[in-house]
Amino acid sequence: MDVWRYTQSGFNEQDAVTNGNRFLVGNGFMGYRGTMDEWGREQLAAVCLAGVYDQNGGKWREPVNAPNGLFAELTLHGKPVALGRTEPSEHSQTVDFRRGTHSRDTRFPGVRIQSERFASMARPHLLMSRLAITFYEGGDAELKTGVVTDIWDINGPHLFGHTFNDGRVLMCESRTGELGIPVAVAQAADCGFGCGEKRKITDTGVYRFIRFRAEAGKTYYVTLASAVFTGMDDPDPGESALSLCEKALAEGYESCLKAHEAVWDGIWQDCAVELRGDDSAALALNASLYHLNSIAPRHAESLSIPARGLSGQTYKGAVFWDSEIFLFPVFVHTQPELAKTLLRYRIDTLPGALRKADEYGFRGAFYAWESQEGGVEGCTDYNVTDVFTHRPVRTYFRDKQIHISGDIAYAFWRYYEITGDLSLLKQGGAEVILQCARFYLSRTHLRADTGKAELLDVIGPDEYHERVNNSAFTNQMAAHCMENALALGDVFAEHDPDFVGSLIKKLDFEQDMELIRALLPKLRPTFPEGGLVEQFDGYFKLEDCTLEEVRGRVLDEREYWGTNHGVAAHTQIIKQADVIALAALFPALFSDETVERNWRYYEPRTEHGSSLSACMYALTACRFGRPDLAWEHFIKTASIDLAGGGKHWAGEIYIGGTHPAANGGAWMIAALGFAGLEIRGGELTLRPCLPKQIQSLRFPVTLRGKRIRVTVTHDGFSVEDA
Amino acid sequence: MDVWRYTQSGFNEQDAVTNGNRFLVGNGFMGYRGTMDEWGREQLAAVCLAGVYDQNGGKWREPVNAPNGLFAELTLHGKPVALGRTEPSEHSQTVDFRRGTHSRDTRFPGVRIQSERFASMARPHLLMSRLAITFYEGGDAELKTGVVTDIWDINGPHLFGHTFNDGRVLMCESRTGELGIPVAVAQAADCGFGCGEKRKITDTGVYRFIRFRAEAGKTYYVTLASAVFTGMDDPDPGESALSLCEKALAEGYESCLKAHEAVWDGIWQDCAVELRGDDSAALALNASLYHLNSIAPRHAESLSIPARGLSGQTYKGAVFWDSEIFLFPVFVHTQPELAKTLLRYRIDTLPGALRKADEYGFRGAFYAWESQEGGVEGCTDYNVTDVFTHRPVRTYFRDKQIHISGDIAYAFWRYYEITGDLSLLKQGGAEVILQCARFYLSRTHLRADTGKAELLDVIGPDEYHERVNNSAFTNQMAAHCMENALALGDVFAEHDPDFVGSLIKKLDFEQDMELIRALLPKLRPTFPEGGLVEQFDGYFKLEDCTLEEVRGRVLDEREYWGTNHGVAAHTQIIKQADVIALAALFPALFSDETVERNWRYYEPRTEHGSSLSACMYALTACRFGRPDLAWEHFIKTASIDLAGGGKHWAGEIYIGGTHPAANGGAWMIAALGFAGLEIRGGELTLRPCLPKQIQSLRFPVTLRGKRIRVTVTHDGFSVEDA
Repeated sequence: MDVWRYTQSGFNEQDAVTNGNRFLVGNGFMGYRGTMDEWGREQLAAVCLAGVYDQNGGKWREPVNAPNGLFAELTLHGKPVALGRTEPSEHSQTVDFRRGTHSRDTRFPGVRIQSERFASMARPHLLMSRLAITFYEGGDAELKTGVVTDIWDINGPHLFGHTFNDGRVLMCESRTGELGIPVAVAQAADCGFGCGEKRKITDTGVYRFIRFRAEAGKTYYVTLASAVFTGMDDPDPGESALSLCEKALAEGYESCLKAHEAVWDGIWQDCAVELRGDDSAALALNASLYHLNSIAPRHAESLSIPARGLSGQTYKGAVFWDSEIFLFPVFVHTQPELAKTLLRYRIDTLPGALRKADEYGFRGAFYAWESQEGGVEGCTDYNVTDVFTHRPVRTYFRDKQIHISGDIAYAFWRYYEITGDLSLLKQGGAEVILQCARFYLSRTHLRADTGKAELLDVIGPDEYHERVNNSAFTNQMAAHCMENALALGDVFAEHDPDFVGSLIKKLDFEQDMELIRALLPKLRPTFPEGGLVEQFDGYFKLEDCTLEEVRGRVLDEREYWGTNHGVAAHTQIIKQADVIALAALFPALFSDETVERNWRYYEPRTEHGSSLSACMYALTACRFGRPDLAWEHFIKTASIDLAGGGKHWAGEIYIGGTHPAANGGAWMIAALGFAGLEIRGGELTLRPCLPKQIQSLRFPVTLRGKRIRVTVTHDGFSVEDA
Repeated sequence: MDVWRYTQSGFNEQDAVTNGNRFLVGNGFMGYRGTMDEWGREQLAAVCLAGVYDQNGGKWREPVNAPNGLFAELTLHGKPVALGRTEPSEHSQTVDFRRGTHSRDTRFPGVRIQSERFASMARPHLLMSRLAITFYEGGDAELKTGVVTDIWDINGPHLFGHTFNDGRVLMCESRTGELGIPVAVAQAADCGFGCGEKRKITDTGVYRFIRFRAEAGKTYYVTLASAVFTGMDDPDPGESALSLCEKALAEGYESCLKAHEAVWDGIWQDCAVELRGDDSAALALNASLYHLNSIAPRHAESLSIPARGLSGQTYKGAVFWDSEIFLFPVFVHTQPELAKTLLRYRIDTLPGALRKADEYGFRGAFYAWESQEGGVEGCTDYNVTDVFTHRPVRTYFRDKQIHISGDIAYAFWRYYEITGDLSLLKQGGAEVILQCARFYLSRTHLRADTGKAELLDVIGPDEYHERVNNSAFTNQMAAHCMENALALGDVFAEHDPDFVGSLIKKLDFEQDMELIRALLPKLRPTFPEGGLVEQFDGYFKLEDCTLEEVRGRVLDEREYWGTNHGVAAHTQIIKQADVIALAALFPALFSDETVERNWRYYEPRTEHGSSLSACMYALTACRFGRPDLAWEHFIKTASIDLAGGGKHWAGEIYIGGTHPAANGGAWMIAALGFAGLEIRGGELTLRPCLPKQIQSLRFPVTLRGKRIRVTVTHDGFSVEDA
């Protein structure tokens, strides 16, 4: 079994949507869904751009999909040959994780179409594909290719005023509707054989028609280069796109692919996990790291990763806490520059967070729950549609899920803890921590008689329970943030003793610092040894029924289990790890026995209705030495995008796509759970807890700029330079 | 037009439920629904008992209906003659407000049945009826009568272990299921003509069959006396019921009726409002005061009035804020002993309020939103059923409608303000005020940075908006309660200088008094002159649409508009007066101009989906001199039970019945609004604002134990001894 390639044989139309995710290629700048060369909007073809957003009318704000410059459809004897319309005799689709390529191989009556494509890791604006068309019988053939606007949009259209150019390099230049951002897509083509070419502009794109007399038994190769630039990354997107296409074609497909593969090679040297003993698990883990790296913003200084990656517009292309809690850990251990890029996005979006806090009458930084460019809050007040009435439902993710600020502050602190590097704190991270602490200060209430400190009316990680008081997770995140705000002075004391003082002065933070100092001991939750942690005030008083009982109350498979009317909302059934996420993120707070007690209470009560759940349960099961309990959660987490699992609906809203947080979670379980890796202040410790299914784990870690390699077997472990 | 009698002619089966309410007779101890003599469960026949509650299984706790001792069904030629099964040629039903009697007159083929009944005001345990049966043709007749258990129950059955006795006085003795309270119903009958009688016990009751050979053209009179006693009011209910029946029959129908009428006569002397100029309005006002007095607990020392009176088990027979805010004002101005009886109920149920506060982690007294005997909270966490899924919906009336405690404290204070009488405060009222203030103290939160005092997560009078912050009404009620807690010392300074000090000591209240003193200025809302008052934090940011727009979104006429999924919940459409109720209850807080500005803003945004709404709008319209704006609300309020209006469904839950709060509201509009009556510390002022429809208003008021009479015309007003 090749653990580096995933192939699906045969064609099933129902798989088209999921395969678009499974077989995606991407490079952080853009993602190209795993669709056929000849597909369009109907099959959810899309070139998803990172960090470019648009709002059409009152609809949800979402990322912009670029026109598709790799479109290619063959016509044989005057009839289009297209998967889904033409019955194939054989078909397979493959994604090569090591090389970062997508390929298809389809035998139609009379012709075999093979293609390979990649989103260049060496040149983030470049997409290339090579088609190999083999004819079983001779005849007139025409390949229709070009830059087409026939692409998937959920709440589009987003591009307007298309200007097409049908020169040798085809060009489509448009602007987004809301902000008028230019988007240019060019395409150049190279045929290694004699052919005629006609070019044409229509409503749906600019096309070239490559016509040739096909000989039986012969294979015809066509190379397509498509470049995508936007006004956000280039002063002259059209010109840059044109010149990149020409350059790529001049260099040739093989040469461009080689440069692309060389980058992937470096990525895998940085982060590949060699898992021996279970090839399916190894494949799933490779797939996870492939997807995660395909969407990592290597091209940017300051950008984060949407919750559904670059697989479409689901979740509005927004950045969630997933980035800090599930993706950041992978990068900070393997590719710290990417970790910094993710966190710089939070520094740069601090003004948005300050505005959001102010909007709700609070001070400090309240980060967007669904963060778009500049920290714009993409989350609406109505994030779910009721399946019974088809009316929008008021949800409180936007206004009550306040742990987001603490999650971000937590990641800044972890970056410092793991790397010992003060630069990120200095370049804005410290300010983020202070402003988040200030937010929690202003969001905390003291009871008028007892002085008890409370964070009221919040949503914790478990989203099925809205508007709860004193979520253990949230209170701890807030307290941790305040602790770190207070600790900043010590951290900088040696190397930059004036820094924190000036910052506090600049932010007019002296008085708040005193208030935080006084408040912290009252707000910080206490967790008695061995005790059950109540998820929030009154959780234990909720109906204690089984997951099956709650499932039995469901009347429509698409109905949302949360909000006030949801079947889980007033039971102890939770969507995802909450107290267990707390235990995973704050290992020092709980003894192994306490973790186990809480795990055994909460696990059966968890629906795992979020892809963020299983990973936390697997990590914590390793804490109390039960890799067997972790295994199922590991497999589920690592396989999520291969298996096409996860929820596809929240109410009437489609939420499918890739699952970067689970991808990151898979690495976390392997490295931080099974190998028990922990780095703190440059010191590495291992506390392995290998499941019986795994013979050995071997993976690199970047420690203080140096790559080392960890090997864990059932007999022991070793650490060496890599 | 006779403004003292309401008659409905003709028979329409659909009216049976509403007529049960319209034609009710009652005496505070019990209510007998306005059903036909021959009706049972199916037509919602019921003898509703005040203050006796029972819970069957997990169903809602509700009041107990007694077996029906006035059941009577005629059989002619072997065939039952019954309205609804036998087509009448003529039918009418009448309630006589002045005499407190119900009568019916039905001509069936061959026979005319007339009857009259009353629930004796002179003897609270006694029901009597007299049937007059006139035959158009001779034949064998049988009147089947007795004590029957065929009565309406919503969440019953509640009576078990029936012991029937078929002696001369029929007897049914039972016990309630939950608490085992004995309930005895006896019946004695008197026929003024020769007849045979057989008696029989069956599953559904104990019957007597009065058989006689009817002569054409002759009228046969039968008198029934039924007595109802429970273990809550008598050590030997069976014996007492038996003896009362015998006594009543011995005295005779006319004599008993006379005693009953004499009490009603006194009641009307105390409270009748003579409204000249609009007979329909006068009739409606008489109906309102009739219903209100029919359910007033004259027989008790400490009892309050359920929100649907004694018309059934709707709203669990529970006592709401209606009693203090809508009923108490009528009684305190006209029959102060009844006002005391209502408030003594709150003194006696203080332990229940202390328990409820404790249950939610607060201190002091948190009164039940739906109070049953002993202050038991009848309100459940699921008070509405979703019409689309038929699943119970989590509502927050029970836990968040905290203004109830302030409403009660407000009434105690008003009693003192109006009467100058300290006795009620001394006999427990002061303790109620202190414990309510303590509750608000413990329910208030201070923001950790600014120290702002807030009452978070509440429901104000407008129930369509759940879980809001800083409801203007609620904050003012809480502040008023605290103010009065602080003012108690001054109030008693002259006559009983040690009382408050000892009470504070007894309640360990010294420290809380200091906290309240410090908190009050922060919590008391301020209302800028001429400004719009925001109903709660963020109300003005809600969708500002019209009532019609919201109505247009309704998919099922029975769907509930509130809770998170309701069509009104996230708009500015409100169920009932909220800010305007605040303006009505605290007239000194607002100038007339400010009242008008707020009235004009809120009125078009009010659905008036509660019978408590229109009255507040009418009262306040009189404040700014616009009786024309008040008139429609007055008519709606006063006519509610005659018209059979009001909502009948909240989700899938039947909420019909009589509307005591609107009955009280009608009086308030007439006396406090149109006449502009205000009594404070024994001083009476009038500020009339008569609508053009009314020529004059004339009504008694009891002032310091003396009855005076107020007359208001368009030319002026006068006050004289009555």
